[in-house]
Amino acid sequence: MSRLVMKFGGTSVADLERIRRVGRLVAAEVAAGHQVAVVVSAMSGKTNELVAWTDGAGAAAQGLEPSDDEYDVVVASGEQVTAGLLAMTLRNMGVPARSWMGWQIPIIADDAHGRARIDDVPSENLIEAMDKGQVAVIAGFQGVTRDGRIATLGRGGSDTSAVAIAAAVKAIRCDIYTDVDGVYTTDPRIESKARKLSKISYEEMLEMASLGAKVLQTRSVELAMAKNVPVRVLSSFVEPGEAPGQGTIVCDEEEIMEKRIVSGVAYSRDEAKITLYGLPDHPGVSSAIFGALADANVNVDMIVQSHARTADTANMEFTVGKRDAARAVEIVRAAQPKIGFEDVKVNEDVAKVSVIGVGMRSHTGVAKTMFGALAEKGVNIQVISTSEIKISVLIDAAYTELAVRALHAAYGLDQL
Amino acid sequence: MSRLVMKFGGTSVADLERIRRVGRLVAAEVAAGHQVAVVVSAMSGKTNELVAWTDGAGAAAQGLEPSDDEYDVVVASGEQVTAGLLAMTLRNMGVPARSWMGWQIPIIADDAHGRARIDDVPSENLIEAMDKGQVAVIAGFQGVTRDGRIATLGRGGSDTSAVAIAAAVKAIRCDIYTDVDGVYTTDPRIESKARKLSKISYEEMLEMASLGAKVLQTRSVELAMAKNVPVRVLSSFVEPGEAPGQGTIVCDEEEIMEKRIVSGVAYSRDEAKITLYGLPDHPGVSSAIFGALADANVNVDMIVQSHARTADTANMEFTVGKRDAARAVEIVRAAQPKIGFEDVKVNEDVAKVSVIGVGMRSHTGVAKTMFGALAEKGVNIQVISTSEIKISVLIDAAYTELAVRALHAAYGLDQL
Repeated sequence: MSRLVMKFGGTSVADLERIRRVGRLVAAEVAAGHQVAVVVSAMSGKTNELVAWTDGAGAAAQGLEPSDDEYDVVVASGEQVTAGLLAMTLRNMGVPARSWMGWQIPIIADDAHGRARIDDVPSENLIEAMDKGQVAVIAGFQGVTRDGRIATLGRGGSDTSAVAIAAAVKAIRCDIYTDVDGVYTTDPRIESKARKLSKISYEEMLEMASLGAKVLQTRSVELAMAKNVPVRVLSSFVEPGEAPGQGTIVCDEEEIMEKRIVSGVAYSRDEAKITLYGLPDHPGVSSAIFGALADANVNVDMIVQSHARTADTANMEFTVGKRDAARAVEIVRAAQPKIGFEDVKVNEDVAKVSVIGVGMRSHTGVAKTMFGALAEKGVNIQVISTSEIKISVLIDAAYTELAVRALHAAYGLDQL
Repeated sequence: MSRLVMKFGGTSVADLERIRRVGRLVAAEVAAGHQVAVVVSAMSGKTNELVAWTDGAGAAAQGLEPSDDEYDVVVASGEQVTAGLLAMTLRNMGVPARSWMGWQIPIIADDAHGRARIDDVPSENLIEAMDKGQVAVIAGFQGVTRDGRIATLGRGGSDTSAVAIAAAVKAIRCDIYTDVDGVYTTDPRIESKARKLSKISYEEMLEMASLGAKVLQTRSVELAMAKNVPVRVLSSFVEPGEAPGQGTIVCDEEEIMEKRIVSGVAYSRDEAKITLYGLPDHPGVSSAIFGALADANVNVDMIVQSHARTADTANMEFTVGKRDAARAVEIVRAAQPKIGFEDVKVNEDVAKVSVIGVGMRSHTGVAKTMFGALAEKGVNIQVISTSEIKISVLIDAAYTELAVRALHAAYGLDQL
C-alpha cells in the first residue's frame, strides 16, 4: 500500500465549501488506493487575525523581549481548527479520519519559536493509524519542543511540515495543493507564452523560490532534496468531479529525462541597490561594510566593486531587500568615519531578472545568449551575479517585463 | 506562600482591552503575595463562531455519528488563543507568566467528548512553575484523554477547570470573575432591594445554580463541595486602579457564622408543565410514563398526581425543560395505547419560584410563610416540590415578578 501526503494551503481551506472540496480530493486519493496523510494550513485570513491579536497583546511591550513562545500558542490554533474541520468533513463523506496536532504525532521541533526547525518526526503513531485505513489530518506549521511547548515553523511552514511527514512515513510523493496549477517557465501574468513544466529539479526550484516565484517555501524544497522526497505542485481549485491536473513534479535532477539548458526565467522587484562612492582602495574595506551589515542581520545579495579611472578610490554597489534598504543605509552611514567613503545612494527602481537551469553546468554560451538578448532590447545591465545554475542581472525596474519576455524567447522556452 | 486560582469567563476576555484589565487584576494578586494560576475561557463569541463551523463541517452528515472528538479539537482552540494572549499581556506588564493547555499540565479527562469529566490533575508541573514565581495561565474548558486526544468539558466547563486546578494545587481559594459582582438574594433586575450575600453554602449555591441563577456552573460547585475549595464570585468589570469588590464566597455551611433560614429566592421560566388526564388508577402507570421519558433522556423535574373525585382515574402533572416539551409530548403520546390516559396538554406559561436556605433543615414554618405570602398576593400554586433546603412552586408565569418580590420581603431578605 503506497502512502501519499497531500498539503493544502490557506486559500484552499478558506471556508467550509473549500474544505469540502479538499475532502473530495482526499477521498479520491483514498479511493485510488493510497494511504493518505493531509497537512493543512490555517483558513486564509485566520493567521493574520491571530497575529494582529498577538501584536495587540504585545503593544504594551517596552524594551521587553517578544513573547515568541506565547505567539506560537496563539497562532498555532489556526491550523488546529482546520485540521478538526477537515477530519469531520472527511468522516461525513464516509472516509475514516482523525486530526493530529504537532504535539500528538509528535513533530519535534527546536525552541526557536516563530521560526522553529523540525528535529525529528517519530512516525510510529501515524503509520499505525494510516495502516488501519484512517486518513491522518495533520495541523501544519506547528511542532512541539522537547519540553512540551508549541513551536511554529514560520510563514509557509506547512510546506515544510508536509515534506517532513512525507519523509517520515516514507510516502511515494508529497502533493502540495495551491492556487496555481504548477511551476511555469516564467510568470504567466507577464508572458502569456509561459509553459507549465512537468518536472523541475530541486536545485532549480530552490533558485526559483528564492528569486520570488512564491510557489514553495525554500526550506521545504531543501528538506525534500535532503530526504529525496518527490514533491508535486498542483491546484486545489477544481470543480466537483473534475480531476486536478498533473501539476509539476519537483524531483532529483537524475529523474528528469528531458534536459533543458534553461528551465525558467524568474524576477524579483523586492531589491534595492545601494551604491557607495569614493571608497578608499585598501584591504579591509569590504569586510568593514559587510561585517556591519551582517551583524545587523541585513542580507546582502549581489555585490560589485568598480575602480574609478581618475583616482585612488573605488565605488561599491550591492543589493539588499527593499524593506532592509533604509536600515542598511543607516548602518553604513554609522560606519562612514571608519570606512571613509564619500557618499551613499539608494536606488529602489531596480529589478533582478534571472535565468535558471541545471544545464548551465555543462553548457557554455548561456551568459552570452542572455546578454545578447538584453542588449538587443536596449536593456542596460547594472550588476551581474552568477551561481552554478543561475545568472542574475540587476536592471532598471521599468524594463522588467521586456527583459523577462526577451529571455523567455531567447532560450526557446516559448516552444517547450 | 499561598496559591490562588483566578478564573475569567468569555465576556471578561472579550477583547484585548479587557484582557489587559484581567492582566492588571492578576498583577495585583501577584503583588499581594499570591502564587497565581489563571484559568481563561475563549473570547466571547469565539466559541459560537467555532461551533458554527463544526456544524457546517458536519452538515453533510446523514445518519453518521457526530464527530465529537474533532468538535473538541476545533472548539478547544478558543481557550488556547486567550491563554496565549493573556500570558503575553502579563509578561509585557513585567509579570512572569506562561500558558498551559489541558494536555500540557495535563488535565486528564475521560473520553466523553464535548462533555468530558476531569479524572485527574497531576499538579507537579504547575506547582513547580508557580513556585518559581511564574503565573500559570491555563486554557479552561479542556482536558486530554488518556490516549492523548483533546476533550472539552461542555459549556461553562472553565468554572470546573478552575475548581479542579484549585484543588490540585491546594489553593486557598478559587476566584471566579464574571460579569456580576456576587450572588444576590434574588435577581436584582426583578427586585431592586436584592442584597449581595457575603457568603453562601455549597448546597444553597447548587440549588441556586440548578434553578436558573446562572452564576456558576453546577458541576463546578459540586466539585468545590467535594474538594472543599472555597469559591468566590466577583466582577472583573472594574476600572484601572479600582479594586474588585469582595464578591460572594461559596463555602462550607460550617464557615458561615450568620445563619439565615432562607438565603435566596430563585426563579426559572424554562419549564413547561405537561398534564395527563384520565390515567387509569393502577400500579405501573408512573413507571411506564417516566421510564419512557428517561429512556429518551428527558429530564423531569416536578411531579404531582391527583385523583379525580368522580371517577377511578387520576391526573398527572409534571414539568420538563421548555425545549424538551414537544418531544416529551410525542413520547407520552406514543405510549398512550400502553398507558391508557385520555388526553395530554402542555402549558408553557409557567414559572418555577423557589426559596432556598440551609436553615430549613432546622426551622419549621418556612413553607407556611411561603404559601401565606403567595396567597396574600393572589398567586395560585399549581405544583409544589421540596428538598431538604428548598421549596419550589410552579405558578402562572405572569405572576413571576410579583411572587419573587413577595417572597423576598416575606423572609426579610430586603433587610439583610
